[in-house]
Amino acid sequence: MSEYSGHDKNGASVGIVKRQYFTFAEPPNKMALESGAKLGPITLAYETYGRLNETKSNVVMVFHALSGNSHAAGYYSEKDDKPGWWDNMVGPGKGIDTDKYCVICSNIIGSCYGSTGPSSPDPRTGKPYGLNFPLLTVADMVKAQKRLIDHLGIKKLLCLVGGSIGGMQAIEWAVSYPEMVQSVIPIASTCKRSALSIGLSEAQRQAIMADPNWNNGDYYSQEPPNKGLALARIIGHITYLSEDSMQRKFGRRLHENSAFKFDFSPDFEVESYLHYQGKKFVERFDANSYLYITKASDYFDLGEQKGGGSLVKALSRTSAKFLVISFSSDWLYPTSQSKEMVKAMKKAGLDVSFCEIEVDFGHDSFLLAHDQLKRLISGFINRVKNEVNKAS
Amino acid sequence: MSEYSGHDKNGASVGIVKRQYFTFAEPPNKMALESGAKLGPITLAYETYGRLNETKSNVVMVFHALSGNSHAAGYYSEKDDKPGWWDNMVGPGKGIDTDKYCVICSNIIGSCYGSTGPSSPDPRTGKPYGLNFPLLTVADMVKAQKRLIDHLGIKKLLCLVGGSIGGMQAIEWAVSYPEMVQSVIPIASTCKRSALSIGLSEAQRQAIMADPNWNNGDYYSQEPPNKGLALARIIGHITYLSEDSMQRKFGRRLHENSAFKFDFSPDFEVESYLHYQGKKFVERFDANSYLYITKASDYFDLGEQKGGGSLVKALSRTSAKFLVISFSSDWLYPTSQSKEMVKAMKKAGLDVSFCEIEVDFGHDSFLLAHDQLKRLISGFINRVKNEVNKAS
Repeated sequence: MSEYSGHDKNGASVGIVKRQYFTFAEPPNKMALESGAKLGPITLAYETYGRLNETKSNVVMVFHALSGNSHAAGYYSEKDDKPGWWDNMVGPGKGIDTDKYCVICSNIIGSCYGSTGPSSPDPRTGKPYGLNFPLLTVADMVKAQKRLIDHLGIKKLLCLVGGSIGGMQAIEWAVSYPEMVQSVIPIASTCKRSALSIGLSEAQRQAIMADPNWNNGDYYSQEPPNKGLALARIIGHITYLSEDSMQRKFGRRLHENSAFKFDFSPDFEVESYLHYQGKKFVERFDANSYLYITKASDYFDLGEQKGGGSLVKALSRTSAKFLVISFSSDWLYPTSQSKEMVKAMKKAGLDVSFCEIEVDFGHDSFLLAHDQLKRLISGFINRVKNEVNKAS
Repeated sequence: MSEYSGHDKNGASVGIVKRQYFTFAEPPNKMALESGAKLGPITLAYETYGRLNETKSNVVMVFHALSGNSHAAGYYSEKDDKPGWWDNMVGPGKGIDTDKYCVICSNIIGSCYGSTGPSSPDPRTGKPYGLNFPLLTVADMVKAQKRLIDHLGIKKLLCLVGGSIGGMQAIEWAVSYPEMVQSVIPIASTCKRSALSIGLSEAQRQAIMADPNWNNGDYYSQEPPNKGLALARIIGHITYLSEDSMQRKFGRRLHENSAFKFDFSPDFEVESYLHYQGKKFVERFDANSYLYITKASDYFDLGEQKGGGSLVKALSRTSAKFLVISFSSDWLYPTSQSKEMVKAMKKAGLDVSFCEIEVDFGHDSFLLAHDQLKRLISGFINRVKNEVNKAS
């Protein structure tokens, strides 16, 4: 494992970091998936920040959301001007303090940032899998991460933290591997996707699949479905924001002119902003990965899949401590869904704290620097650490 | 004008009705639009229900939303098994009582149900306008309706009622032609579209415009952009519902199988329902009309356009009485936007009542049979009628 680098590029930062890889499930020992299919070899891209202590008891795992990757913190080089996606939370003295904890973040399978996914070569053909890649569930993603943690020789995980589909992974971990997980912080997440979010998710997939360039997933040697993926991102991006934050940020301000253009190009700033988000996204993300990951999150229903229909029963498998966090303006994973989860945790006799943060940035609030979020996370991990130390 | 037909197909119904047409603005006397462009000839399709009284003082205008048409009530024939879109509200003894009032509903310009729109023949070429059709505003739609009302010899409008963009038309009428409008009921509407709704609107337009069959609007002699239009409808349809109603109606119920299919066809009922909505829609609606009408609603900002930036000033032009109605679960035109409108109306010294109906069907609640909505509308129109009679 990489040690904490003293290199500090931008004030309190973990500094220069390196993406690492772990490959396993080499054929014929492929990993069985929930669908019944088998996948292998599997590579996981991951990063670590902070120093692993001698007893390997200070590990905090961080889980990324749909379009994220293993690069949660730090910079890849001196020239790199953009830090990892949660650099405001992960670093020396930050909410997840790399002076105290060893943080691990791995890119999920199905994604396109170094882990095995639909754009990876299919060992049977040497060409990208495309739709020959098997469909995944959140439990499959977690099962692969478990292999990484075993490989690193880690037996106990002090805390698992993730937002959105990252939160689903964290909860799934606690239920699938209860002997390893000491605490979990699901943020802006859910134990099952609602009909509304499935509908929005399917609209995004349809945007990709309606693009003729998608070509049934076989586009890696030709023009990719950029229009479709950009539109998927536009729809998705709207669901990450809130009415209030959009109104404050854009209102009805016009983009270029002081008058309406009276054609079908963007008149309003909010339109050109969304177009820009879509355009930027296609430069960095794979359309098939978008399909696979959104479908995995739609499939997620912990009570159904791990409790025979009872969320309480599913959660009774773990004794991890929970801190559940929601945001008042999140309409994709609204507070009501976090409360449902908390209620079931209480019924399962778990040690659970809950906080709804009043903030109007919508679902994406978990990625923004927010003092209350930082204090909640840092305080909770610290408490768990002390309780674990006392007990041992 | 058609008289009230005694024919009652289905209990309390206006019976068999007929679509009528009025054509005006024949070249060179085209109608000037807000964009500076001119449009003509213009045909408006419209229907009337109930009997016009001698003093022509019992007219209630009903305005349809994005995908609606002039067929608000009744049936076109004995064989017709589906009544007009607001048949639960408009009819003998109903919320808008055709035994008392003469109801007029006209299809807006830009639409594809008999009124002049992008699918109508361009008189210069004889072929459908396509994108040569000029962009419209809500004020343009209302200006055309004014010509119809003049043609019918009606000087005073007892009440104007509309939901969504129909509500925008009703408010615009009151401000543009204050001498004619005695009262207005905007339902689930707004005086200006928010950044969120503009963003969602643009996503829907992009879905159409990204379909290669759209062909820059020139598709009338070939395969139309059905995939794009269906996706636009899917996105739109989601915004008309609410989290709660979708959860109750669909939850996570699976569509065909008792297990996940692990492919990218619809697994969940909510997905196949949305696909069905999209598929049904392309059989009845024109993709270009969808672009023109959504853009017109995005442009709508009464305070900016009629009050030099002040909604109070814009509303001060009218002395109509208002009943503003919102639905608690509507997130497209939320109650906050109705309250903003009500506040400005009060500041403008208007007679205004406001009611938020507690219902969880979302924006589409205005189309559903709802006793409270019926009572509110019928009571308000009756009160206005009595006050108008007393004053004259």
